[in-house]
Amino acid sequence: MMENFLKYFKLPLPQLLLLSVVFTQSKSLLAQDSVQQRDSAAFRQIYTQSLTDGRAYDWLKHLTQGIGHRLSGSPSAEKAVFWTRSVLDTLGFDSVWLQPVIVPHWVRGTAEKVAILPGKTVKSMNLHALALGGSVGTPPGGIQGQVVRVSSWEALDLLGEKGLKGKIAYFNRAMDQSKINTFEAYGGAVDQRVRGASKAARYGAIAVIVRSVGTTLDTFPHTGVLHYDTAFTAIPAIAISTRDAEMLNELLNRPEPVRVSINLHCESLPDAPSHNVIASLRGTEQPNDVILVGGHLDSWDVGQGAHDDGAGVVQSMEVLRLLHKMGYRPRHTIRCVLFMNEENGGRGGAKYAEESAKKGEFPLASIESDAGGFSPRSFGFDAEQSVFDAFFDQIKLAAPLFKPYGIVLEKGGGGADIGPLKGQKGLLGGLEPDSQRYFDLHHTGNDVFEQVNKRELQLGAAAMAALVYWMDQHLPCSKK
Amino acid sequence: MMENFLKYFKLPLPQLLLLSVVFTQSKSLLAQDSVQQRDSAAFRQIYTQSLTDGRAYDWLKHLTQGIGHRLSGSPSAEKAVFWTRSVLDTLGFDSVWLQPVIVPHWVRGTAEKVAILPGKTVKSMNLHALALGGSVGTPPGGIQGQVVRVSSWEALDLLGEKGLKGKIAYFNRAMDQSKINTFEAYGGAVDQRVRGASKAARYGAIAVIVRSVGTTLDTFPHTGVLHYDTAFTAIPAIAISTRDAEMLNELLNRPEPVRVSINLHCESLPDAPSHNVIASLRGTEQPNDVILVGGHLDSWDVGQGAHDDGAGVVQSMEVLRLLHKMGYRPRHTIRCVLFMNEENGGRGGAKYAEESAKKGEFPLASIESDAGGFSPRSFGFDAEQSVFDAFFDQIKLAAPLFKPYGIVLEKGGGGADIGPLKGQKGLLGGLEPDSQRYFDLHHTGNDVFEQVNKRELQLGAAAMAALVYWMDQHLPCSKK
Repeated sequence: MMENFLKYFKLPLPQLLLLSVVFTQSKSLLAQDSVQQRDSAAFRQIYTQSLTDGRAYDWLKHLTQGIGHRLSGSPSAEKAVFWTRSVLDTLGFDSVWLQPVIVPHWVRGTAEKVAILPGKTVKSMNLHALALGGSVGTPPGGIQGQVVRVSSWEALDLLGEKGLKGKIAYFNRAMDQSKINTFEAYGGAVDQRVRGASKAARYGAIAVIVRSVGTTLDTFPHTGVLHYDTAFTAIPAIAISTRDAEMLNELLNRPEPVRVSINLHCESLPDAPSHNVIASLRGTEQPNDVILVGGHLDSWDVGQGAHDDGAGVVQSMEVLRLLHKMGYRPRHTIRCVLFMNEENGGRGGAKYAEESAKKGEFPLASIESDAGGFSPRSFGFDAEQSVFDAFFDQIKLAAPLFKPYGIVLEKGGGGADIGPLKGQKGLLGGLEPDSQRYFDLHHTGNDVFEQVNKRELQLGAAAMAALVYWMDQHLPCSKK
Repeated sequence: MMENFLKYFKLPLPQLLLLSVVFTQSKSLLAQDSVQQRDSAAFRQIYTQSLTDGRAYDWLKHLTQGIGHRLSGSPSAEKAVFWTRSVLDTLGFDSVWLQPVIVPHWVRGTAEKVAILPGKTVKSMNLHALALGGSVGTPPGGIQGQVVRVSSWEALDLLGEKGLKGKIAYFNRAMDQSKINTFEAYGGAVDQRVRGASKAARYGAIAVIVRSVGTTLDTFPHTGVLHYDTAFTAIPAIAISTRDAEMLNELLNRPEPVRVSINLHCESLPDAPSHNVIASLRGTEQPNDVILVGGHLDSWDVGQGAHDDGAGVVQSMEVLRLLHKMGYRPRHTIRCVLFMNEENGGRGGAKYAEESAKKGEFPLASIESDAGGFSPRSFGFDAEQSVFDAFFDQIKLAAPLFKPYGIVLEKGGGGADIGPLKGQKGLLGGLEPDSQRYFDLHHTGNDVFEQVNKRELQLGAAAMAALVYWMDQHLPCSKK
């Protein structure tokens, strides 16, 4: 089915279904003007509903303040699975189900303790630190060692075994604040967190400290996943807050060596059973073609996972609710997927893609919200190269409809959970909210409900619902 | 001079000055490509400086947390005048001075006390309330009266003297949350605050209560200016928080009349001397043509006036600092004006325009930042009708340069302080940040420094500096 996708774009004119609530139930080809008027009215209705009678914000309050953070394999992650399912069950959709997925089960254990050890000119001091997700723990009693600053990968190789053996490597490269989009700046610094441990272990380092990958100067450490290269010893790895990182830099500018003690109690338990949570409105014409909207249910085990990605979860649920409440009967199947395990494994996304292929579904379009619940500014699109241009030529026709809502449609985007669907040759898209505040909070104890603004969250849900509506109306059906 | 402005657009090609730091000092006509490259490099330099080595955020911290709110005529407003002047004095500009202006001097006095009086089914309860700016006080002991709900101007006229005489009118129309831009929603509700008192006094009401003009449901009342129509008695006027307004609505749905007591200690003192704070980089070609960037120093007397308009003040100061630090020598005079008394009189704006006319200056372009320190999204432009099209045709040429920074250039905009300059036939523009959070905080005790994000604030300053640079380079000089 997928390989035949391009031919759908060759249909003389897409069959257009009337939005039942706004105008009439009858199927017909409409003049271009009246199609635009109908779409414009549907957009307005979606936005008004979301802004004046939305549910996403109240749902988020429960998911964050009621349930809390939701690391894969944790009891609270399972609470989130069953609670979101129970909410979806009340909304009258065609189906709601749980898709089993086996997930990693890493636990932090007793809170980490990281301290600068007293020296001649150096005072003892506790650091604001978090073990990186997936880190091994330290032996009982912890480890102690001299800190060696590493400002780049080149510097690491120059230091080599001579400079690093038995020492603690400190990766101190900051995010580049001159970038306008903070995701770009994140991309330019997060490699230290992800690969630093094994790169330093290769030269005999006994642990790594990473400057938190965040935009503000504050005392909140940012955790996040690391990947161990199995060729080297897995060594303990922590992030320290940006203020602590600046302070450590100052200490390292002095002649006296700086020694640090690290106590981590984290460990990886056996994989655990969990679920993706899925709800569908069945397509009236092409139920096997799926327009997906999703976010991820899991979060890191600090704060409340409000922007990452409670926001995407409740927005995705809201999309289905808004369309259903309008009485909208979709041509394609519209599906909300709350993925499990985006943060430390991506198992939910992989599982969903595997099942999609197995069932022979066609993931016509998949939209993820996983960049925070801030004021929406754009959608970014991606697809397998052979189908991208055809998709983007279509999708950009929606740009004038989004203009009054301050949303632009761009190339380049998607999301980690929908990424595995790319090979199935549907369109992938990501909601792109204003990025300025996201990395102040990302993976910290400060990513809490109070950081989310109701209107901004509901605007994101509305933008996604409007896009899904438009795609359902205008992306061609695969008539067989 | 102004009447001859249109002719400047008829010059064969604007004389283009090289950005001295980026390329060279020599004057010449550059090929279009190289002009674009030079401009693009200047934009990049401005943004990088603002994001990595900006001062606006630190200045804002002092202005808000150090000095606090700054109502016209208050000692703290004068502190703000002298402190901003002292900062500007250190920056090496060509001139810094104070422009005297006489301002209204209203004081709140002892905090207001507003309470629902106990009845058969109604419990006594204090309300979260603020006197509106300019309100008269109540007699000693306060006033008490029955509350009559007024949902529209039509409803007010229908109630008339029979329904309102001796009563307290309660204007309860909420902001329309379905608007995408909250300034539009504000415009649709603020008439109750501004005109409600005199409209109700006309029918004999003894006081008015207004639902706070804000976007969130919370307990922060929003103050703001009212205008008394001198044809009617000036009666006390307060705003109550949106949560209190909802609660009052519920009480008013019951059969029992609701009575409220109001104690206000506010009064209008004699006008007081104050100042606009002004700094300039003198134009090398046309010093009499002024490109102005400004915000207002005064604020309401609650919170810290952080977004309204501490942000605009420090951004305007930052614009001059950034350009000066780059070694930029402007063709026109570039001027930062920190206006006094935007909130309750607009005397600073009026005074500046009067002096501008007196001196025979030409206010070529004036840009105001008075819509919060949030992530910038657009500039909106306005001008006297006879010159607008010529200006906008020019200014829109800058749009491609702003695209990488997520800023669009639109028709319609400006600011209250620069409004009086309109008749002098220059271009007026307003920085338009994301509007979603502004009316959560506007004129409340919650408009504090912590609500401002450093990157968002510095991005606004950079956008303004880039625009000022571009205008200085491309708007024609008035060769005489």
